[in-house]
Amino acid sequence: SRTLSLAVIPGDGIGQEVVAEGLKVLAAALPSDVKLETKSFDFGAKRYHATGETLTEDDLTQLKEHDAILLGAIGDPSVPSGVLERGFLLKLRFAFDHHVNLRPSRLFPGVATPLAGSPDIDFVVVREGTEGPYTGNGGSIRTGTPHEVATEVSLNTAFGIERVVRDAYARAQARPRKKLTLVHKNNVLVHAGHLWTNIFNKVGEEFPDVTTDYLHVDAATIFLVTDPARFDVIVTDNLFGDIITDLAAAVSGGIGIAASGNINPSGDFPSMFEPVHGSAPDIAGQSKADPTATILSVALLLQHLGYADEAARVEKAVHADLAERTAPRSTVEVGDALAARVAG
Amino acid sequence: SRTLSLAVIPGDGIGQEVVAEGLKVLAAALPSDVKLETKSFDFGAKRYHATGETLTEDDLTQLKEHDAILLGAIGDPSVPSGVLERGFLLKLRFAFDHHVNLRPSRLFPGVATPLAGSPDIDFVVVREGTEGPYTGNGGSIRTGTPHEVATEVSLNTAFGIERVVRDAYARAQARPRKKLTLVHKNNVLVHAGHLWTNIFNKVGEEFPDVTTDYLHVDAATIFLVTDPARFDVIVTDNLFGDIITDLAAAVSGGIGIAASGNINPSGDFPSMFEPVHGSAPDIAGQSKADPTATILSVALLLQHLGYADEAARVEKAVHADLAERTAPRSTVEVGDALAARVAG
Ligand SMILES: CC(C)[C@H](C(=O)O)[C@@H](O)C(=O)O
Ligand SMILES: CC(C)[C@H](C(=O)O)[C@@H](O)C(=O)O
Repeated sequence: SRTLSLAVIPGDGIGQEVVAEGLKVLAAALPSDVKLETKSFDFGAKRYHATGETLTEDDLTQLKEHDAILLGAIGDPSVPSGVLERGFLLKLRFAFDHHVNLRPSRLFPGVATPLAGSPDIDFVVVREGTEGPYTGNGGSIRTGTPHEVATEVSLNTAFGIERVVRDAYARAQARPRKKLTLVHKNNVLVHAGHLWTNIFNKVGEEFPDVTTDYLHVDAATIFLVTDPARFDVIVTDNLFGDIITDLAAAVSGGIGIAASGNINPSGDFPSMFEPVHGSAPDIAGQSKADPTATILSVALLLQHLGYADEAARVEKAVHADLAERTAPRSTVEVGDALAARVAG
Repeated sequence: SRTLSLAVIPGDGIGQEVVAEGLKVLAAALPSDVKLETKSFDFGAKRYHATGETLTEDDLTQLKEHDAILLGAIGDPSVPSGVLERGFLLKLRFAFDHHVNLRPSRLFPGVATPLAGSPDIDFVVVREGTEGPYTGNGGSIRTGTPHEVATEVSLNTAFGIERVVRDAYARAQARPRKKLTLVHKNNVLVHAGHLWTNIFNKVGEEFPDVTTDYLHVDAATIFLVTDPARFDVIVTDNLFGDIITDLAAAVSGGIGIAASGNINPSGDFPSMFEPVHGSAPDIAGQSKADPTATILSVALLLQHLGYADEAARVEKAVHADLAERTAPRSTVEVGDALAARVAG
């Protein structure tokens, strides 16, 4: 019999609640000969306040022992902005080299969108996860004085861009429309932009059946609201990916149902799956949070670990459930309903 | 009698067509004792191809002699990406210290929006125009090799942030809702982000009647589609401002009607007014371009030069015209209709 060893990080706020439902659905989806072993980790605001720690070397060693990581949400207003983001979320992405940040957007039937006319939305953003302006290469001088100067340095390497661009081409090739859009701002950020553009064009020669185009990030936000159906796969830089995936989530039903994976395709480190939404402290503990984003993240996890049929079953269950959803339900009710559909 | 000395830069593509209509409306709006003196400049793709020049020191000296600048659009696919953007548009913003990039968004009655339910949209983005990742402080090593590393440096100074933040507070204070939102990404870009946040809070003490809040740029894109009515004045960094103003234009009727001003409030250099849209070479020369964005930019120009009543008349004319617009009209027809309304 096989084993799936999963590190579980419920985190802060609604994290605990949504992760519980994600695990329920995961258990229901896994083949009966797979033993699910979970180990829970207490990262987040509580531990930070108690110990001052966000993520230690020992934590990383322990996390590394697992096949994958499921995360709820990390973040709380009691912690200064940046501490848990840089000290936990980004530290983990960099430590485990999660260079493919995968964020699918799909407007399921029955789901409300802020867009008129409910367009046909089914695309995926492949966001670079370990470079760009996220590397923490900034600083300041004369800090706190009227003469302060602060910098943020975007670091971009041919190595780092090529691997994520190739991953995106492969994903585009595996989809029916086989279309890949590069999003950047190469008319202003000319050095990083030209590096991205050149590699995008060069790697494209290996994928002659993939149609490509290029959009500046500002223009991409326009199309995401006027013609989201034009997108199939998008590949982009870390910061642009952060921005457009929140917008993509908003137009395709909200961050309540947006899933994501922080993936290391090499398998040298476990990949991590998490909803795009945050810890939502305002509704925490009230069983109001929608666990669907976490459950769709579980589908990405299953897919990543090679359980493609099981991933499809989870997605199908979500699809059917959303189409029939009417009255608001509690976090647990949604999880139960989805687990039942997956098991049935 | 007074004189308004205007530098006119029609530029590329539809630039010529829309600027002609802008000038028509400007002439109709100005008080009869104001003499409008225009001088046209041939910047853009044609001159670049003919001479290799984008914007020389002598050009800047000549432009500086004017009270203001009206720009159509600069850019053509025949010129490599970045050449005219960095060599003309950004060079001019930096040379004339256009640190307030003003971009109002308003959903006029009768105007189509991609958003369901036609929300109440009336806000203005104050985008910093001379700092951030736009300073051109990047470079690359091992260029063109598999070991290339490219950087882009975002430069942020207390001086540069404080002046634009103060300008935005003053604009918020002058509006009925008196609300100012800072948009940044201070949980990741912690050095620049904390500088922006600290100055935003400190300058706020001088404006106790202005309500403030803060949004990460990714969250801001969500609200721009789910609840744009929440915004009154937004102040933000150069790159975030570039991104969210295109999105803002898209939700409030499209870049066909989005106006902007590149303003130097000190008056040491002439400010420049231009539509947000580009040169649209695909429809150039066909009298298909909508000159409304340019005409609304003329209203910003009038406002900036102290002709507040005249600016209001232009805006009112656009308002009435858009509410009644039915069949598509040519560029000239729209300009004529608006000039007639303004004159009448
Ligand atoms: C919380 C923050 C560090 C993070 C990011 O910017 O990547 C979040 O916005 C996301 O998109 O996962
Ligand atoms: C053309 C480009 C340099 C410019 C910018 O990025 O500022 C444009 O997108 C704008 O918003 O005015």
